[in-house]
Amino acid sequence: MTLRNRPIPRGVSIVGAGMSKFGAFPEKASRDLFIEAYKDLVNSVDKGFDPEDIEIIYVGNFSNDLFEGQSHIAPIMADSIGLVPRPAVRIEDACASSGVALRQGIIAIASGMYDIVLIGGVEKMNNLPTSKVTDTLATGGDILYEIPAGFTFPGFYAAMATAYMHRYGATPEDLMNVAIKNHENGALNPKAQFNVTIPDWMEKRKASAKRKGKPVPTWETTWDFLHDDHANPMIAYPLRLFDCSPITDGATAVLLVADEIANQFTDSPIHIIGSGQASDMPMHDREDLTTIGAARYASHAAYQMAGVTPQDIRIAEVHDCFTIAEIIASEDIGFFDPGTGYSKAAEGVTARIGDKPINTSGGLKAKGHPVGASGLGQTVEIWKQMRGEAGKRQVPGDIPLALTHNVGATGQTCVVHIYERRS
Amino acid sequence: MTLRNRPIPRGVSIVGAGMSKFGAFPEKASRDLFIEAYKDLVNSVDKGFDPEDIEIIYVGNFSNDLFEGQSHIAPIMADSIGLVPRPAVRIEDACASSGVALRQGIIAIASGMYDIVLIGGVEKMNNLPTSKVTDTLATGGDILYEIPAGFTFPGFYAAMATAYMHRYGATPEDLMNVAIKNHENGALNPKAQFNVTIPDWMEKRKASAKRKGKPVPTWETTWDFLHDDHANPMIAYPLRLFDCSPITDGATAVLLVADEIANQFTDSPIHIIGSGQASDMPMHDREDLTTIGAARYASHAAYQMAGVTPQDIRIAEVHDCFTIAEIIASEDIGFFDPGTGYSKAAEGVTARIGDKPINTSGGLKAKGHPVGASGLGQTVEIWKQMRGEAGKRQVPGDIPLALTHNVGATGQTCVVHIYERRS
Repeated sequence: MTLRNRPIPRGVSIVGAGMSKFGAFPEKASRDLFIEAYKDLVNSVDKGFDPEDIEIIYVGNFSNDLFEGQSHIAPIMADSIGLVPRPAVRIEDACASSGVALRQGIIAIASGMYDIVLIGGVEKMNNLPTSKVTDTLATGGDILYEIPAGFTFPGFYAAMATAYMHRYGATPEDLMNVAIKNHENGALNPKAQFNVTIPDWMEKRKASAKRKGKPVPTWETTWDFLHDDHANPMIAYPLRLFDCSPITDGATAVLLVADEIANQFTDSPIHIIGSGQASDMPMHDREDLTTIGAARYASHAAYQMAGVTPQDIRIAEVHDCFTIAEIIASEDIGFFDPGTGYSKAAEGVTARIGDKPINTSGGLKAKGHPVGASGLGQTVEIWKQMRGEAGKRQVPGDIPLALTHNVGATGQTCVVHIYERRS
Repeated sequence: MTLRNRPIPRGVSIVGAGMSKFGAFPEKASRDLFIEAYKDLVNSVDKGFDPEDIEIIYVGNFSNDLFEGQSHIAPIMADSIGLVPRPAVRIEDACASSGVALRQGIIAIASGMYDIVLIGGVEKMNNLPTSKVTDTLATGGDILYEIPAGFTFPGFYAAMATAYMHRYGATPEDLMNVAIKNHENGALNPKAQFNVTIPDWMEKRKASAKRKGKPVPTWETTWDFLHDDHANPMIAYPLRLFDCSPITDGATAVLLVADEIANQFTDSPIHIIGSGQASDMPMHDREDLTTIGAARYASHAAYQMAGVTPQDIRIAEVHDCFTIAEIIASEDIGFFDPGTGYSKAAEGVTARIGDKPINTSGGLKAKGHPVGASGLGQTVEIWKQMRGEAGKRQVPGDIPLALTHNVGATGQTCVVHIYERRS
């Protein structure tokens, strides 16, 4: 079937975007992270604005219920930045929560009922020990048919990886290329959880061992490090530690307004011209594990709405919760043909200076993956890149069109947005 | 401040509504309950419809993460009724989740991006032991400033009750009147968790004691029963067991379409002409516990949008999670002046045959309170009543206008809708 997805009947612009530092912050509550993101957003609005003008707030969050023991998080966040009594709505679609929240904001403005909408995303994951985080993430699978069989998220994506490798001949090293690239990008992103390249990481580890009088690792190349079962242990074949995104605390925020008032906020708004969302069955029911069907539906809908093609898109932020996910995503969004994404990554096409840069922010892999905040984090990067404000990681040249691709869990949800900068 | 809340720019109609039986169903999963509600909805659509025509689904759910261990519930529900790959979005605002989901559906249709929207609500609470249910509900309060002080939901509403009694001179018996009325209504609702009056309940208890050879209770009147510390124990003064809504498994579903196509589904649609939502600070920060500020904001916005007054409304379903909540609600929605709701209840004004019937369904108190499904459950009752399909509990005469009032937690969220039947 084709998803019915009519054009947005009213232009929508991003006029501000911010994020907290991503990382592990045991001393901070979710509301502290959100305040940090919101302040960053406020500072990003070129002409300033009166927060009183915000009319409604959508908050993307996966499971603060389980992570922090605080549900009903939307009014808590609204109160934390002085927005009560405005309507406050939490949106949950697993790791796609804030991408879907952005989409609800677009719909709210399109409705004509609202002109100025705040979108937030937040997740506070490091309150729990790692095994409990894994259990919590697993609730995003199918708890009747998948989790009792022993699946966790590394396992789900490992299954996709082996299916992909089997069909297309990719190797574990092809996956590692994605990690190397994303850490190179993350090293240039001050807000990233891991703002360090893998070679720098190796040197730090060596220096630390030397300082402590321990045996100094003998890695000579990045590949030595990535194949070291101690430094980069196998999590679920073929995925090693550096194929997996980290456990992250973080928050993100975007200010969305109707096009016709965007110039009150900035002379350089970023317009959203395409928005697609789709759902899918749990993974155990799907015939093909080498692609995420919801991502193909959502991409198609977004391209159709925007009236553009994958060839027109200059950069993309895609959902690289695992390295294999980025490769599959690069095919699902139409950048590359099925089965060719891994070789394009190896050829450097998706590097910052390549033809189709992907995850210049460092991606979920290096920037970090506070699940409910990650989708909107992609939008924050697009905002910076399209406005030429991405600092050392800035992609060269104009970026007239960009795309974000945000997946929930194993792909039961995907939401894709297309952004335009009009010169 | 006044909440900005522009008119819905496009007419919206309910053309079908259904619910599962409410109760405790240890053998059913949340998806089973949802399928039951959806089938009931399908049967309610007068002219039938093709489920393939549904374009997007919103699912209200409080915390299936904690209750059932299944998050990312929206695509699971979509899949359970064959709706993938349509977008599936979970909305969470504690006990107002499905009322807010309904509002998102209205916004989606108003946007012009969608014409046919399915709204669902579901909660599966009885998987956990009662104390864990209480803990789970408590996550809807403020976990930094309220829950560590020992508050649970009976405690929150007990604080509202004592504040109200102190200011206005109401008594615990005034609260009990609400329970008596709502059980009378629930006794006439086959889908209610407790479809039994309190006098019938007493007789059953007496018969059971006699059958078992135990001492037969000596209650002669309802009041004897309600004052019996054994039969109706104190939970948190002044709230006794029968002042509290039960722990409930249940699901609800509503089919929402653009006005201009409503007659393809039915000749008797119910139009939604007003929709208001507001947020508030956690309870510990509020100055006045005898009213819920978000309910006043949301009501005002809904009335203004609809262009009607409380005097115009024939019936209402309000959020009686506790008896005191119904009394405060009857004032917050403008049916009665502050401090008079309890005497109006005593006078029978809110009874089924009164001037202002409230909770003809039995309310959360007797119908049951599957928290994320309850808001939409109110809409199901309004649908039945306005179409004259409420059976033995049918309110006499025409019902041109009706209202629902759905509260999240202690009132950090409230959402109010106004419904119209055009003859």
